[in-house]
Amino acid sequence: MSDVSIPPKVLEIADGIKTMRIRGAGKIGRAAAEALKIAAEEYNGPRDSSLFKKYIGRVADILISTRPTAVSLPNAVMFVLSSLRDQYGFDEARSAIVGAANRFIEESLNAVKKISEMGAKRIKENSIILTHCHSSVAVNTITEAYRQGKVVKVYSTETRPFYQGRITTTQLLNNGVPVVQIPDSAVRYVMNDVDYVVIGADTIASNGAVINKIGTSQVALAAKEARVRVYVVAESYKFSPITLVGELVPIEFRDPSEVVPEEWLKQHPGVKVLNPSFDVTPPEYIDAIVTEVGVIPPQSAILVLMERLGWALEKIKQGLSISTIRFEDLLE
Amino acid sequence: MSDVSIPPKVLEIADGIKTMRIRGAGKIGRAAAEALKIAAEEYNGPRDSSLFKKYIGRVADILISTRPTAVSLPNAVMFVLSSLRDQYGFDEARSAIVGAANRFIEESLNAVKKISEMGAKRIKENSIILTHCHSSVAVNTITEAYRQGKVVKVYSTETRPFYQGRITTTQLLNNGVPVVQIPDSAVRYVMNDVDYVVIGADTIASNGAVINKIGTSQVALAAKEARVRVYVVAESYKFSPITLVGELVPIEFRDPSEVVPEEWLKQHPGVKVLNPSFDVTPPEYIDAIVTEVGVIPPQSAILVLMERLGWALEKIKQGLSISTIRFEDLLE
Amino acid sequence: MSDVSIPPKVLEIADGIKTMRIRGAGKIGRAAAEALKIAAEEYNGPRDSSLFKKYIGRVADILISTRPTAVSLPNAVMFVLSSLRDQYGFDEARSAIVGAANRFIEESLNAVKKISEMGAKRIKENSIILTHCHSSVAVNTITEAYRQGKVVKVYSTETRPFYQGRITTTQLLNNGVPVVQIPDSAVRYVMNDVDYVVIGADTIASNGAVINKIGTSQVALAAKEARVRVYVVAESYKFSPITLVGELVPIEFRDPSEVVPEEWLKQHPGVKVLNPSFDVTPPEYIDAIVTEVGVIPPQSAILVLMERLGWALEKIKQGLSISTIRFEDLLE
Amino acid sequence: MSDVSIPPKVLEIADGIKTMRIRGAGKIGRAAAEALKIAAEEYNGPRDSSLFKKYIGRVADILISTRPTAVSLPNAVMFVLSSLRDQYGFDEARSAIVGAANRFIEESLNAVKKISEMGAKRIKENSIILTHCHSSVAVNTITEAYRQGKVVKVYSTETRPFYQGRITTTQLLNNGVPVVQIPDSAVRYVMNDVDYVVIGADTIASNGAVINKIGTSQVALAAKEARVRVYVVAESYKFSPITLVGELVPIEFRDPSEVVPEEWLKQHPGVKVLNPSFDVTPPEYIDAIVTEVGVIPPQSAILVLMERLGWALEKIKQGLSISTIRFEDLLE
Amino acid sequence: MSDVSIPPKVLEIADGIKTMRIRGAGKIGRAAAEALKIAAEEYNGPRDSSLFKKYIGRVADILISTRPTAVSLPNAVMFVLSSLRDQYGFDEARSAIVGAANRFIEESLNAVKKISEMGAKRIKENSIILTHCHSSVAVNTITEAYRQGKVVKVYSTETRPFYQGRITTTQLLNNGVPVVQIPDSAVRYVMNDVDYVVIGADTIASNGAVINKIGTSQVALAAKEARVRVYVVAESYKFSPITLVGELVPIEFRDPSEVVPEEWLKQHPGVKVLNPSFDVTPPEYIDAIVTEVGVIPPQSAILVLMERLGWALEKIKQGLSISTIRFEDLLE
Amino acid sequence: MSDVSIPPKVLEIADGIKTMRIRGAGKIGRAAAEALKIAAEEYNGPRDSSLFKKYIGRVADILISTRPTAVSLPNAVMFVLSSLRDQYGFDEARSAIVGAANRFIEESLNAVKKISEMGAKRIKENSIILTHCHSSVAVNTITEAYRQGKVVKVYSTETRPFYQGRITTTQLLNNGVPVVQIPDSAVRYVMNDVDYVVIGADTIASNGAVINKIGTSQVALAAKEARVRVYVVAESYKFSPITLVGELVPIEFRDPSEVVPEEWLKQHPGVKVLNPSFDVTPPEYIDAIVTEVGVIPPQSAILVLMERLGWALEKIKQGLSISTIRFEDLLE
Repeated sequence: MSDVSIPPKVLEIADGIKTMRIRGAGKIGRAAAEALKIAAEEYNGPRDSSLFKKYIGRVADILISTRPTAVSLPNAVMFVLSSLRDQYGFDEARSAIVGAANRFIEESLNAVKKISEMGAKRIKENSIILTHCHSSVAVNTITEAYRQGKVVKVYSTETRPFYQGRITTTQLLNNGVPVVQIPDSAVRYVMNDVDYVVIGADTIASNGAVINKIGTSQVALAAKEARVRVYVVAESYKFSPITLVGELVPIEFRDPSEVVPEEWLKQHPGVKVLNPSFDVTPPEYIDAIVTEVGVIPPQSAILVLMERLGWALEKIKQGLSISTIRFEDLLE
Repeated sequence: MSDVSIPPKVLEIADGIKTMRIRGAGKIGRAAAEALKIAAEEYNGPRDSSLFKKYIGRVADILISTRPTAVSLPNAVMFVLSSLRDQYGFDEARSAIVGAANRFIEESLNAVKKISEMGAKRIKENSIILTHCHSSVAVNTITEAYRQGKVVKVYSTETRPFYQGRITTTQLLNNGVPVVQIPDSAVRYVMNDVDYVVIGADTIASNGAVINKIGTSQVALAAKEARVRVYVVAESYKFSPITLVGELVPIEFRDPSEVVPEEWLKQHPGVKVLNPSFDVTPPEYIDAIVTEVGVIPPQSAILVLMERLGWALEKIKQGLSISTIRFEDLLE
Repeated sequence: MSDVSIPPKVLEIADGIKTMRIRGAGKIGRAAAEALKIAAEEYNGPRDSSLFKKYIGRVADILISTRPTAVSLPNAVMFVLSSLRDQYGFDEARSAIVGAANRFIEESLNAVKKISEMGAKRIKENSIILTHCHSSVAVNTITEAYRQGKVVKVYSTETRPFYQGRITTTQLLNNGVPVVQIPDSAVRYVMNDVDYVVIGADTIASNGAVINKIGTSQVALAAKEARVRVYVVAESYKFSPITLVGELVPIEFRDPSEVVPEEWLKQHPGVKVLNPSFDVTPPEYIDAIVTEVGVIPPQSAILVLMERLGWALEKIKQGLSISTIRFEDLLE
Repeated sequence: MSDVSIPPKVLEIADGIKTMRIRGAGKIGRAAAEALKIAAEEYNGPRDSSLFKKYIGRVADILISTRPTAVSLPNAVMFVLSSLRDQYGFDEARSAIVGAANRFIEESLNAVKKISEMGAKRIKENSIILTHCHSSVAVNTITEAYRQGKVVKVYSTETRPFYQGRITTTQLLNNGVPVVQIPDSAVRYVMNDVDYVVIGADTIASNGAVINKIGTSQVALAAKEARVRVYVVAESYKFSPITLVGELVPIEFRDPSEVVPEEWLKQHPGVKVLNPSFDVTPPEYIDAIVTEVGVIPPQSAILVLMERLGWALEKIKQGLSISTIRFEDLLE
Repeated sequence: MSDVSIPPKVLEIADGIKTMRIRGAGKIGRAAAEALKIAAEEYNGPRDSSLFKKYIGRVADILISTRPTAVSLPNAVMFVLSSLRDQYGFDEARSAIVGAANRFIEESLNAVKKISEMGAKRIKENSIILTHCHSSVAVNTITEAYRQGKVVKVYSTETRPFYQGRITTTQLLNNGVPVVQIPDSAVRYVMNDVDYVVIGADTIASNGAVINKIGTSQVALAAKEARVRVYVVAESYKFSPITLVGELVPIEFRDPSEVVPEEWLKQHPGVKVLNPSFDVTPPEYIDAIVTEVGVIPPQSAILVLMERLGWALEKIKQGLSISTIRFEDLLE
Repeated sequence: MSDVSIPPKVLEIADGIKTMRIRGAGKIGRAAAEALKIAAEEYNGPRDSSLFKKYIGRVADILISTRPTAVSLPNAVMFVLSSLRDQYGFDEARSAIVGAANRFIEESLNAVKKISEMGAKRIKENSIILTHCHSSVAVNTITEAYRQGKVVKVYSTETRPFYQGRITTTQLLNNGVPVVQIPDSAVRYVMNDVDYVVIGADTIASNGAVINKIGTSQVALAAKEARVRVYVVAESYKFSPITLVGELVPIEFRDPSEVVPEEWLKQHPGVKVLNPSFDVTPPEYIDAIVTEVGVIPPQSAILVLMERLGWALEKIKQGLSISTIRFEDLLE
């Protein structure tokens, strides 16, 4: 009975994620939840809970396959699937899916605000903050602390090769925050002047390591050397469930032309250019991770996964890898 | 008798240093030695050693005043003046100056070659080297090690904001050395793959701290964290005698437009930009300094000063500052 | 129906906490639990679970407002409130409150004994212990280890400016333990001779940081430097739930006259005196926290909060701050 | 009614553990689970759940008393006992025991395979691994990574005094893995060449400390110094529940003749020989523990205990020590 | 001919040092130099250089025996004796002694001023300084930096048990410097706010270790942890020549009644009190030592000894210990 | 005139060094000095200082070529050659050589005794010492400290693969010192119990790094981690002059059969065995080097070279390498 048809809107969302029309961790996660909700609501197969679950598993598999390395995608899917219980009848199962999807969307939308409030509380009066790259949560947290009158200066690194730090600078300046722009290489030079490093995260692994824009780990190292506190602000869907079963977060290598001009490349045919997009900051360089579910030490990252993904996490462990799991089978 | 005239060629050299027509630590130092030599040779006052010394002191003061922060300038001047002895008669004094000036020039010209040979010896087979910014001595040392078949790869940082690292890359490629260009923020990412960091120095302080291009101290910190050896290759005239009496090496702040485009600056009138040219690497992050007078731990920097500047160092200590010393009086 | 009257004994306890007639983390916590128990038992409103919960919420709010920074107060209140379940009818709700209150009181009374037994197990034969300030749990743990024949010497710091270390010394001596009194500044001098640092805690934050008497973090730092194990012994109600949502533990600044004599202050009108009561020891300087619920690494502090405060923790997270939560509304 | 007879097969298993006929953490654990299963199946007393539980408690006590320091023994027993619920009737209780015993056995048998798969995922291309002593899980994990084409060399320490490292070497060579045998003292010499340290564990304590073959902590220290990742691969039954209540893992001192020849001992009557079998690696030197229930930071060790031992853990905490608990009473 | 009489004024000075009428490192050193000068000037034996040297050796022995642990005493004596040369005739020898004694006295008197000037140069704008205990050189250096407009705040520790920090506070306040008085235990609490630690020294050992008032090493450790620079300001006669041959600097244990009131001691007959006067700060925690002969890293301490004590150092090495040397014999 | 014949006894000594009949750093050094002395005494060419110097240079070259990596060989040769002065006539030159050779031999013979005395002074009462491998100087120093009643226990590592630690144990036991023999892997296990690590050195490099028996750097690392002092005891001829010009100290790889039995090797044809004889301990892990010329920090190693080898050091620097220097030419 795997031939119950998938609603077109669901497929459209899947396609949107695949073709990167839908981008950004938060948006991808919410789109996936929305898709599962639509799938549940528009399900038109037999009112049999077992079949329904299998159908939902199929939708889950389709969604996850669109962009397997986007960390918020399995988070959203697994969060919604976690709501299912073995003993549920069809109606219960359907409404569980719809309810969980709604909850994911709502909590995701509130997460940045909550994190900003919690994060801002941890900043003391007269503080100087350093941030690296661009993260909406970091910008919001710093701005909130500034509005509470606690921030006197922010160092914003330019973040080569893409200069995302300039976006951060622009946004902070627009919010009235005083900003000093620095090259990445000046981080250690100013670090003794800094009170807090506040940074976002791309992905957080089960052992508390933070994968974020290249250069982050150097910033954290220089902070550690000078006893400066490092706060990572990150929504709970940045915590990667598949790292729990050993998967490494893949580090993309981007085009040389981002680092050197095309012209220069032609003049130097023998040169190699290494342009990694991320690096890994070990948990011992991070004082706290601020998520919407609380302020935790990085070594408790796994708790966030357990609290939010419960049952689905068990499934992952059985299958050992999100890419080898077939939710369709698991939900039979 | 302070009215013995200074030969025009001497004044011309002084002017060349002042107007930065003569640039680069080595060239400035040798020009100053040359000027003292000319001054001695063309001296046309009375054949009285006391008057001669006073005259040479006056020339020294003129030279040093042209660019007080160029570290090789007082080094050259003091090296030459160190050759004077109290008991010297006129002829001896004159030939001592000429001899010392010649020696400074010759040793300075040989220094890079000697350092490259010594430095290359310290590189083992199959090594991967990382270098930061551009330093002729570093390029020569790495190239020499490569020619001995010991270097398999060199990581060269781009060195924002001026991209001097690209000069390094070009020169190494021209010498046949395989180079990987990386952004400054990728240093820690590649560090576990690196066997040696080889860098130049702008100035070396009496306590062994190394002042070099911004970002150097981050590179050294990341190397220390990964137990990677850091070698500083630097001619002995990079060792600053005035740090011995407490002077700090001044760190220049350069123009914001080197860090962000002028256009962007206009769009962001509220922004500040901090663009320091150098930072300070503490001695505990450096395994050895390779100079033409030997391979030393950074904490023995003071020995290089003592060995080369002897008597003149005593004069500095008495006057406490190169800027308040008048050699004219001291040499009376 | 918020006008069900609060029993006078409850208000009396609230007043006792407010006016500091009831002091000490353990006593405050137990008094709050007692108050909730009395409130439940003497409730004389309608037998409606919804009204009853709202009433209990009101009592909770009154209690918590008496001394918002006393960490054991919200712990006791939230522990008791955690016992409520949505589906409970009136009788179940009332007996849940009474039962939970009794349990809190009993466990609190047993906590010190349990911690001492666990802590003492972790001390090996022939040990030398250092302790800082005065903590009943630390004194009990050390004494228990001494009684098992495992302690040969205890260094007790004087703990300026209040000399609470002398209380520790007196109590240990009374228990027969051999004590060496030292000034705070001699901690690093003796540290190489020490096997364990055993200290209490004022408050433990969600990221595992330990807030304790000023000087504690220096002791822990010197211990870390010498590879000496640091054990924090602390009852579970020392773990602060509000730090989970970002609240910083407030550090009180006490009167200058505790540090210098009044006389001296008058003679030095220009002087400032900084007299902080606590400092923050980061989790990486602590080997284990011994609580009555087990021996944990500091990074698992959050588990203690989750295990003991469950539901109530969710409420905190929703409200983001204990001071902005109104339990009256939450329990409606 | 404590005179319901214990089946002979159960006593035989108990005897097998006691006399070390049954050895090895996995085998002991599974044997204990098997014994409980047999006890449940062959129980011939009254069909009263209370009596049955008491009987099972008695069997548990007998099993645990056979070798109180074997960490997998209480793990197996407590895992099985955790399946009991207060409200269970006789049939439910019996089948819960049988089911839990089967699950323990099955999961235990699968654990090594699962860990190897997860662990291998964390090894990157072109890696050089160092391992110490002999651990089946470590050998399997390294072999699995090698089969995936990611391992170019393995350093295997000889592991004096028993040379267990040679067993590792033999097994790895048999699996086709290229191995370099080194003396224990050469670990730091080769460490800069190493990408990962992969080691097993004898016991893991509740604060994340890893007790393993003597020398392990030196290896981990040298790895930390060189920023080399350390992975501990260990089945979940290596996590010691009794450390949660403060018990230290006992370190056995073995015979001098393992370290020096008997002959030499006779010639040196005054000499002492210290031959400890294990040492303790602190959690901050370990990047991740790979267990069959997931990849965790060492500081989350306690989660593994909580997840697997639930109820029984509560019992331990009440009794404070496995050796003073009488399950017979607890299960009444 | 050892019966040439010692002038009464010399013996009077020796007595003054012995009975501590003459106190303080500087005063003792200058008194000893003065005594040698008088001895030389008033020498009334045969005009034989050999006899004269033997006589001077005898005077040296008398002086050094008065207070063998006062570090400036052997420094002064050896500095003066270093001026002797084997080939000197009587007149030369006598005038060498007188000249060297005068030079020691003059340089000693100028040392504090010179150090203050050099030290102040190393303080940057807007600095916050922390100092421990009381040191005239430190007070002068900080005051000089303040006069140059570079110091905004000074933290002064109280320095239990003797409260010498209050003397520092009084002197700095008198000089107009803004001071914050803190208890010793608050050092780490304020350290992140500090830019420089500036401290004096009691004695500096040949390996660069600094022996100073108890608590100094904790201050330096906390500074290192926070990347705060530590400057030791110390006259060259604080460098101990006998540490070069292995002598440890003795650490005095002072009376318990300095730590606790006599009354309290009587009430606690079993208590021990440890009251060490000094501790040892290892060289790796010190960024620079500022002496009147230059700014050096602590590891170059030995250079100061060599530069100032030359020949006499050779004698020490031969005799291995100042207490076993008889200068009378050496100078024969 | 290079055909003045070399005395047979000189050639015999050279042969003895080459064939390793003469072994051990001290013996080799003294043999070389003896050879130069004989060469000078038995010189039978023209009484021309220039010819004599050339002849002595030739002898020096012969000696050094016998075993270029034996560090004491160039030390002895250069020490003796350093005694030559340009202005010396034949008689002076000859007696300078003879005198310097005698001095080297005498000082070398006294060195161990002097070092033991100095080193023993640095050991405090009630000390526990750990030593690694076998070093006569270390055994003597520990024994001397023991005779002064200051040593209560010595841990002696077995030092695989050659078990030289057992020689140490035997010698210490013969001297009455209480010894505990441990495997190399137990070093960190006992380190918290240790007060001092006392070790010898094979070679000391110009940057203060200590090359010694494999495992030494691990011992020093574990000592550093536990704030245990590390003293290296080494005669001045262990300081390598050629490291000053960049030469690395070669690390010999010894035969696999020292690590595993031949039998085992045959059974494991695919195995590789790495058996390095030495490792490198960085200067920051060493508190002091005790030499017969004084107690110095490792970073002052270069001073020992300068003090002892003066002129010859200059020659090395000119030639950059001992292996490319021809003393015959230099001494022309």
